[in-house]
Amino acid sequence: MSFDRLQEKIDRLQNPTVVGLDPALEHIPPQMLERHIAVRGETLEAAALAVSEWGAGLIDALCDIVPAVKPQSAFYEALGPYGVLALRMTIDYAKSKGMYVILDGKRGDIGSTAQAYSAAYLGAVKVGGAELCPFGADALTINAYLGSDGIKPFIETAAKYDKAMFALVKTSNPSAGELQDLPVGKQGDGSPAWQSQAGEPSPCLVYTAVGDLIESISIDTIGNYGYTRVGAVVGATYPEEMEFLRKRLKNTFFLVPGYGAQGGSASGAARAFDEKGRGAIVNSSRGIIAAWKKSGGGYAAAARAEALRMRDELRAAVY
Amino acid sequence: MSFDRLQEKIDRLQNPTVVGLDPALEHIPPQMLERHIAVRGETLEAAALAVSEWGAGLIDALCDIVPAVKPQSAFYEALGPYGVLALRMTIDYAKSKGMYVILDGKRGDIGSTAQAYSAAYLGAVKVGGAELCPFGADALTINAYLGSDGIKPFIETAAKYDKAMFALVKTSNPSAGELQDLPVGKQGDGSPAWQSQAGEPSPCLVYTAVGDLIESISIDTIGNYGYTRVGAVVGATYPEEMEFLRKRLKNTFFLVPGYGAQGGSASGAARAFDEKGRGAIVNSSRGIIAAWKKSGGGYAAAARAEALRMRDELRAAVY
Repeated sequence: MSFDRLQEKIDRLQNPTVVGLDPALEHIPPQMLERHIAVRGETLEAAALAVSEWGAGLIDALCDIVPAVKPQSAFYEALGPYGVLALRMTIDYAKSKGMYVILDGKRGDIGSTAQAYSAAYLGAVKVGGAELCPFGADALTINAYLGSDGIKPFIETAAKYDKAMFALVKTSNPSAGELQDLPVGKQGDGSPAWQSQAGEPSPCLVYTAVGDLIESISIDTIGNYGYTRVGAVVGATYPEEMEFLRKRLKNTFFLVPGYGAQGGSASGAARAFDEKGRGAIVNSSRGIIAAWKKSGGGYAAAARAEALRMRDELRAAVY
Repeated sequence: MSFDRLQEKIDRLQNPTVVGLDPALEHIPPQMLERHIAVRGETLEAAALAVSEWGAGLIDALCDIVPAVKPQSAFYEALGPYGVLALRMTIDYAKSKGMYVILDGKRGDIGSTAQAYSAAYLGAVKVGGAELCPFGADALTINAYLGSDGIKPFIETAAKYDKAMFALVKTSNPSAGELQDLPVGKQGDGSPAWQSQAGEPSPCLVYTAVGDLIESISIDTIGNYGYTRVGAVVGATYPEEMEFLRKRLKNTFFLVPGYGAQGGSASGAARAFDEKGRGAIVNSSRGIIAAWKKSGGGYAAAARAEALRMRDELRAAVY
């Protein structure tokens, strides 16, 4: 249960890497896109077919060395309904090759709407007497701004279908701190919590409040490796905050963006792991999928070479 | 520019209502779903076709009295790629009938990913030499947890295509306050901001920080009615906070959920409006789209009757 399936895949390949599939059209080799345009014209359908082919090629090149992919939903949605079909085909194909699929959709809503999102991406929908799977990812990124109403429906669906999720806690972008780093007091209380918590390694900030919330409401979903079904997104670009959160959220699995192209280092990312080298997975998107632009050669071979380099770097830093 | 197109539609119909299209399958009249299942079987495709027909029937019944619809993306996504096609068809149909379309997707991401979401829902995508429209809504709900990096790409796209957005500020759900109501200090500063701001009608909380952020970064996009392109979602279920935010965010258009089925009153919602009765729109979803379950009769006629009742109630409270 929980993140056990993911941790087992990571352990088997000795590689805590997830490859982000961000099919912005500039990352697709031009001749691949042009081939589909020749048949379907300059259409979203042609672009979606190219993106689907591109993703399958990457999955073929990576599935024996990388345990997981993270399709970024936005780039598929940008190609309209055909793009969303390409997303589903990519999820299906990655799963058929044994990869764990983290859909990066950052969804967040409440009540029946959160149920609908969780059914869409982690569960199933009933039509008449049939139970049908709309997308079938293994995990989904979510946004917890709406509070526990917005997380519990995802936990329920995840429990039913043995799935998991990652809530945004401390993101990797430069402006992450504008809201996430604001110091917070207790609700309905004028006193600043961060002055009264002596011995805390850091003040209580918005992102620590989010982290505390997600760990506390999922604490009864702990799996074999000590982690709940509700992981946290924590950027490699903030290594001190990473170390602080690793100590504070002992039962929360981390998804770590920001390595490579965004400037995060392997040693920074390594702080996301527990003393057994578990409990986290590090994402690289552009660094791997756009490696062909620097190295030349086929896009899939270039991605594999870069994924091997990243694996070895993470192995040295983490294990 | 900005929300001018929406305000003009509201003024013409003297009705600040947006009808939320939440096609959970239990809201679709059973015979409509069964008719499509008879042709396509118990499939997501059959369900999506029923949802598309259902939405068109509502739009036909409402377009001369209600200025806007708010499709809830989650329920369309829950039907997979066919459901997303039904979403696009519903957006197209509503626009063809003169309605303003607010897509409720609560999207939020950074950099090129935020650009992709904004292109998907508010803008266009280039494939070869063609500029193509993936979904073409008029406005999108967004989540600002990632800070200004996550908002600016939406503002850029909105400026280019004369679109707008609503950021989540104070949502209508019971657990909204878990994070949104935490009192905040200033970044990097141990002092609690809410104790030093004498004369403020309320302490500085997470949601006021989000509100301040969205108004400040969009202040140069003010249109004819005094509102920027970046509106705020503020629930009718918290009327005191609503009144406080209306005073604090003078240039921010409000999207007001929580009226009706969630317990918000017309008099509470009325606090969202400025002294000219402008600057806000009130959503009702279940109250209108599921009216047929209480009143009997056709679902579209029942929705129209309830929409007229809501319009008259809002007119009395707002104008």
